[in-house]
Amino acid sequence: MREHFLEINKIKFEGGDSTNPLAFKYYDANRIVAGKKMKDHLRFALSYWHTLTGNGTDPFGQPTMERDYNSLDGIELSKARVDAAFELMTKLGIEFFCFHDLDIAPEGNSLQEKLDNLDTILERIEDKMKETGIKCLWGTTNAFSHPRFMHGAATSPNADVFAFAAAQVKKALEITHRLRGENYVFWGGREGYETLLNTDIALENDNLAKFLKMAKDYARNIGFEGQFLIEPKPKEPTKHQYDFDTMTVLGFLRKYNLIDDFKLNIEANHATLAGHTFQHELAMARINGVLGSVDANQGDLLLGWDTDQFPTNIYDATLSMYEVLKNGGIAPGGLNFDAKVRRGSFKPDDLFIAYIVGMDTFAKGLLVADKLLTDGVLENFVTKRYESYTAGIGKKIIEDATSFEELAEYALKHDKIVLESGRQEMLEDIVNRYIYK
Amino acid sequence: MREHFLEINKIKFEGGDSTNPLAFKYYDANRIVAGKKMKDHLRFALSYWHTLTGNGTDPFGQPTMERDYNSLDGIELSKARVDAAFELMTKLGIEFFCFHDLDIAPEGNSLQEKLDNLDTILERIEDKMKETGIKCLWGTTNAFSHPRFMHGAATSPNADVFAFAAAQVKKALEITHRLRGENYVFWGGREGYETLLNTDIALENDNLAKFLKMAKDYARNIGFEGQFLIEPKPKEPTKHQYDFDTMTVLGFLRKYNLIDDFKLNIEANHATLAGHTFQHELAMARINGVLGSVDANQGDLLLGWDTDQFPTNIYDATLSMYEVLKNGGIAPGGLNFDAKVRRGSFKPDDLFIAYIVGMDTFAKGLLVADKLLTDGVLENFVTKRYESYTAGIGKKIIEDATSFEELAEYALKHDKIVLESGRQEMLEDIVNRYIYK
Amino acid sequence: MREHFLEINKIKFEGGDSTNPLAFKYYDANRIVAGKKMKDHLRFALSYWHTLTGNGTDPFGQPTMERDYNSLDGIELSKARVDAAFELMTKLGIEFFCFHDLDIAPEGNSLQEKLDNLDTILERIEDKMKETGIKCLWGTTNAFSHPRFMHGAATSPNADVFAFAAAQVKKALEITHRLRGENYVFWGGREGYETLLNTDIALENDNLAKFLKMAKDYARNIGFEGQFLIEPKPKEPTKHQYDFDTMTVLGFLRKYNLIDDFKLNIEANHATLAGHTFQHELAMARINGVLGSVDANQGDLLLGWDTDQFPTNIYDATLSMYEVLKNGGIAPGGLNFDAKVRRGSFKPDDLFIAYIVGMDTFAKGLLVADKLLTDGVLENFVTKRYESYTAGIGKKIIEDATSFEELAEYALKHDKIVLESGRQEMLEDIVNRYIYK
Amino acid sequence: MREHFLEINKIKFEGGDSTNPLAFKYYDANRIVAGKKMKDHLRFALSYWHTLTGNGTDPFGQPTMERDYNSLDGIELSKARVDAAFELMTKLGIEFFCFHDLDIAPEGNSLQEKLDNLDTILERIEDKMKETGIKCLWGTTNAFSHPRFMHGAATSPNADVFAFAAAQVKKALEITHRLRGENYVFWGGREGYETLLNTDIALENDNLAKFLKMAKDYARNIGFEGQFLIEPKPKEPTKHQYDFDTMTVLGFLRKYNLIDDFKLNIEANHATLAGHTFQHELAMARINGVLGSVDANQGDLLLGWDTDQFPTNIYDATLSMYEVLKNGGIAPGGLNFDAKVRRGSFKPDDLFIAYIVGMDTFAKGLLVADKLLTDGVLENFVTKRYESYTAGIGKKIIEDATSFEELAEYALKHDKIVLESGRQEMLEDIVNRYIYK
Repeated sequence: MREHFLEINKIKFEGGDSTNPLAFKYYDANRIVAGKKMKDHLRFALSYWHTLTGNGTDPFGQPTMERDYNSLDGIELSKARVDAAFELMTKLGIEFFCFHDLDIAPEGNSLQEKLDNLDTILERIEDKMKETGIKCLWGTTNAFSHPRFMHGAATSPNADVFAFAAAQVKKALEITHRLRGENYVFWGGREGYETLLNTDIALENDNLAKFLKMAKDYARNIGFEGQFLIEPKPKEPTKHQYDFDTMTVLGFLRKYNLIDDFKLNIEANHATLAGHTFQHELAMARINGVLGSVDANQGDLLLGWDTDQFPTNIYDATLSMYEVLKNGGIAPGGLNFDAKVRRGSFKPDDLFIAYIVGMDTFAKGLLVADKLLTDGVLENFVTKRYESYTAGIGKKIIEDATSFEELAEYALKHDKIVLESGRQEMLEDIVNRYIYK
Repeated sequence: MREHFLEINKIKFEGGDSTNPLAFKYYDANRIVAGKKMKDHLRFALSYWHTLTGNGTDPFGQPTMERDYNSLDGIELSKARVDAAFELMTKLGIEFFCFHDLDIAPEGNSLQEKLDNLDTILERIEDKMKETGIKCLWGTTNAFSHPRFMHGAATSPNADVFAFAAAQVKKALEITHRLRGENYVFWGGREGYETLLNTDIALENDNLAKFLKMAKDYARNIGFEGQFLIEPKPKEPTKHQYDFDTMTVLGFLRKYNLIDDFKLNIEANHATLAGHTFQHELAMARINGVLGSVDANQGDLLLGWDTDQFPTNIYDATLSMYEVLKNGGIAPGGLNFDAKVRRGSFKPDDLFIAYIVGMDTFAKGLLVADKLLTDGVLENFVTKRYESYTAGIGKKIIEDATSFEELAEYALKHDKIVLESGRQEMLEDIVNRYIYK
Repeated sequence: MREHFLEINKIKFEGGDSTNPLAFKYYDANRIVAGKKMKDHLRFALSYWHTLTGNGTDPFGQPTMERDYNSLDGIELSKARVDAAFELMTKLGIEFFCFHDLDIAPEGNSLQEKLDNLDTILERIEDKMKETGIKCLWGTTNAFSHPRFMHGAATSPNADVFAFAAAQVKKALEITHRLRGENYVFWGGREGYETLLNTDIALENDNLAKFLKMAKDYARNIGFEGQFLIEPKPKEPTKHQYDFDTMTVLGFLRKYNLIDDFKLNIEANHATLAGHTFQHELAMARINGVLGSVDANQGDLLLGWDTDQFPTNIYDATLSMYEVLKNGGIAPGGLNFDAKVRRGSFKPDDLFIAYIVGMDTFAKGLLVADKLLTDGVLENFVTKRYESYTAGIGKKIIEDATSFEELAEYALKHDKIVLESGRQEMLEDIVNRYIYK
Repeated sequence: MREHFLEINKIKFEGGDSTNPLAFKYYDANRIVAGKKMKDHLRFALSYWHTLTGNGTDPFGQPTMERDYNSLDGIELSKARVDAAFELMTKLGIEFFCFHDLDIAPEGNSLQEKLDNLDTILERIEDKMKETGIKCLWGTTNAFSHPRFMHGAATSPNADVFAFAAAQVKKALEITHRLRGENYVFWGGREGYETLLNTDIALENDNLAKFLKMAKDYARNIGFEGQFLIEPKPKEPTKHQYDFDTMTVLGFLRKYNLIDDFKLNIEANHATLAGHTFQHELAMARINGVLGSVDANQGDLLLGWDTDQFPTNIYDATLSMYEVLKNGGIAPGGLNFDAKVRRGSFKPDDLFIAYIVGMDTFAKGLLVADKLLTDGVLENFVTKRYESYTAGIGKKIIEDATSFEELAEYALKHDKIVLESGRQEMLEDIVNRYIYK
């Protein structure tokens, strides 16, 4: 088996003073932070699609990525990508990967051929996993690229497409189970609509729920015990995606009694496309008990589409790790780099550099978040801010022990209210100072 | 009692060829459409705040509106506004109004004075209602303008503020009940947050639910039988409003077991601020059985804030009335013009013109929507598009009578799927042609 | 030569009552409006890229378009597309086309082969033009799709890329000249930047100007007398495109003394991506004397990317034709449908329907705009609104015949200013009523 | 004269380890950076409007700010604010202030009274300036808040309004001159339009240019030698502001031959509202030789309006100081904190904290930017990236010594182009590491 990234050795931790682009400055896998190894806090995963099958195309341009397997195709290409993926992960010290069925094997000319291709390639992946100890964070299906899914998969107006998608997800669940994937992700793909002029959204929403229920039942039947995850996204590819954001998905899951079986996979760039901060989406998932996993990337708020950039923004990394720590960790989920190198960063070493930057950014974010929590500089402020709810009328409110009659009577006697400042500027400064250190 | 809009007479229907700005061209109140009077389909309401208390200020400018009561203040001003409101409605043929407590009476120096002011003004309103037959569509409270609500009302970190808000809503419920209001609206105001650095969102969300539950219990206790409505809005005044959009509110209501007691008041401009079309929000509410009422205005998609313009876009009016008709009507809700004249439309007759334009736009929209439905030009297309779900494997999916195993087996035999075009351009053309007619 | 759209006959005008999707309802080519044939006002053009080479891919999906030449490739594919293009235009009664070099011929393995391919295909196009009388509205080059242009063409950091782009544009100018193209368009492509961290924007802007100057000089040398056009676009593919909008381009042209040689090609969807209305961009170009041509499409203001939809919005069509009429027409430019059918409208007849809808929408827009102008309902209002500038101090201002000293003196005596209402709602209503008729 | 912020002493530099919210951690006024004192790089200015007259209102809420002069009004209030302003600046070590006429003195009942009020208050300001050594960075007028300016000032459809605005600006120029202001700023206010249906944009643009020309002439006549600055802004208060962004203003200035007399005052939040980064606007101004001054604040990219937050984002501060350093400094301009405390940060000490945070953020940004430049880590990369333009065909391009003919010939021989990676991820990582240090 040939080495695909010959010029790149295993990436080492060299510390914050290193200027070597091919070294970690903050990610020190086994360093203990808050009682756990960094790598166990972060549970980094490689995304197979952007990393191995992504080629630098954009709506205005052809592939740019220089990869040594560019000349191959079919099953040979798929095999080379398996090797390259595991080489990358090994050299980067990444212990998990995430994949769609379509990422790892060619489509085939029939459904049967598609399924057979998957089996062929699966053996090579299993060998590599055994050899390297690398694990599958989650699997999923691609039910949006092929033209048959142009109007949706589980929400297609065509029942045959629904059935085809079911066959795909059935297989994807089997594969994920066979690879001992710790989660299985449902990302909407084209589950949404372009115009209400041609759409029965009631039927489509119901069908989406039926699909998820059958998927769950099947998976449990075959013994899959991993976590099911839904990944919210507001737009792209359809104008109106049904899984708009965390709260939308929660409403959906509660409506269809699926709330006990699914958690969420929160993506930074999807959060901002929905008009929220990344932290908002993580926090909403956390307080509702459904923070399952994270797609660690970043968008560009001046652009209106999913740019899936490698994360380099220290504020986002800090505040997201803050939520992860408050969540008691992210396992069995992880931080999946659903990120692609910029189209102009087309060299093989750019791929390593991008992963390193992403890992370092989150490692630094973890360190800052841990220190903020350890010192209590934000939490103590919040606790104090709400302390009126720990006694008196406030306590009664919290304990459901009062009524509008009593509250109104109380208010008549306490209508000269003394407020405290929210101190946003001071708190933002504190975060800055913890970052600089 | 003096007349406030001396130069304006009762607005008459003159038909589409009229060029009189002070006449209706499409709104013919008693014309029968789809078996009902136009006015009973549309149930237009005047918004007290924009119409009577709005003065043309914006973040960069002082009041502009020329109103004959500008020189008054205190309770005298409030009384003059009552008269002006009923004069406006009478002249426009609007049969409903919506109000906040703060719109109709001065704040006062204490909570008690505030409540007393409301009682004073209420008598005058009741007289006017009796005199004119005009009804209250809904009441609400303003728990966001006063500085005491700077950090929220039901979601304030200060329990005294929670209590104060409860006292206000208690009174607003009593007033609305006394005026036989057909609904009571909860709009978020400052129920949201600016930054997670200082916010306990779990507590705040819980408290919001507790507040709504107590409000509902109190209202039912005093005999109020109207509909409770929540009005979603994504941003403004806080960066993250808790009632972001329809699906967010549904998730919230289901979580806290409030889903049977509340419906939604959907606003056009709030829909677009959330990244949705107006029709999307209406349709999502409709298929979930919670389409309660409508705030009929329009935003500007090139501007990032709530502009609350009078609705003049025929597409939006048509497609929203399409949803209302499919909903079987909007009663006991209505179409409330939560709209303000442009700051530069400062003359008293601009106010009449703006209402006339809004009413005509929705009247025309109703006519177009009715014709689209009567002719079935869209519905028949949709029915045909989903017909694979009426037999065979599709029917089994709908009836929960299949499984992934069966679907996969089916798909293996039916993997050459023939798709139909979505025909979006053709359907958009149909809407255009129905508008031109 | 075989017919590509066998089932579709020449599209006829059937009038507003027709329900035939394959007939014009408003576009009646030879109808006289404002003294000219409709077709001479509108000068519709087919866009070769979206219509012939567009295949329905999007960032999440594979091709969907059913076209009978899908099985071909190389020069045979290019030839089939020429035939299909002219068949489409003939059947639709479209008299112009617009193209990039890359649309009409394959790339080739070397620059020389690329140029040779163009010559090969050009003969067929010339034959077709002779046969049908169809003309070339404008040509351009594609200097953005190939990976060599990943960092820009005229603004590439690599001088060899600049030279390659020059060779391409040289050839494209020659071709356009040979086809007697009435204009030549420069669309930015990747002339912009992703990050200032790696960009010398001063050099890049200077180089862009140098490139345009050399292009102009070369074209004039070979006898090309057509109009040069720059097409503004704010983002996509690069984050910061240098030709952001009309005013940006005007600033650029004035800086580099190119203002006398270039006009603008204004696109609806680019206008809205820049935060402007379509009408704004047209009007800004018009008052600066550079309204050269129009890319007639429409975007989706809820989506943040260039959707290039076929135009169906009657407001935009009306207000843009209003500007075109005030401009005294658009020739030698035209209305180029830089528009693609929706990905789910994949049938060949969808392509016809989409063009018909677009043409009908603009035809209706022309009729409405003409009537608005003929009746003077907007213009008279505007004239009256500014009449204070036709006499007294206002006239002095217009004639540069006053000073701050005089104005201040005047103001001291005239500080009780009586303003008029802007009447926006009334004016919007007038537009509506003219549309309904 | 009483002290307004009794509990706050002069703010001292305590270094990065200090946790005192009322101390500087990075801003050490006299520390030498790149050969100059920090304070001379940064030239911080207080904005009179947000700081003294801002009261915490927003479109949904009443004033919140606790200030000891809240009980005053009229000229007494104005005087107290002068004292408070100079106390603030003295305690913060801010050496400049910026103001509108309306900030410092009451409007008055006539234009004459308005002018007289300004003279009254000016004496007190002059005394304070003498006493403290604090200087005026720039003055301007407020020609947008009063209802007379509802349709614009220099672009009003009413010539009397134009004259009134001229009288105001005349006085504001005189005042600024008397206070030895180093610049005079023109911010558009309502120079823009709401709808083209009622607007003559050609006349309005011409009038804006006439106004600026007269202003300039008057100022030079009275001996004002300061720099004229235009401040671009894309929207708010009007939908379409004429001074959209840097490039728009440049196009305007060049068109009307005003380019030699005006530079630009770039605001962070206006940049992002226009769809640009702050750095983009600064860089565009810099390479065009018109980077005059900076409004140092920050917006919220998830919100669509001008939030004018105190700047706390280290990336923006670093990259903007990077441009300022490359510009050779910002004098005679400065960094004006056009920023307001959050509505919920209503305590007097929040005002100090907010200024401290803003000053510290820019001080840190200066340190990082200087180190990036000193080490050349970005500049060297850029220089190398463009080196093909320093010799051969590239050099000929730069020197205007080639043509399309020669370039095409060259390209035919050099069509196998070898590209370099743009290395965006690596460069973003470098910025991060310089920030952490």
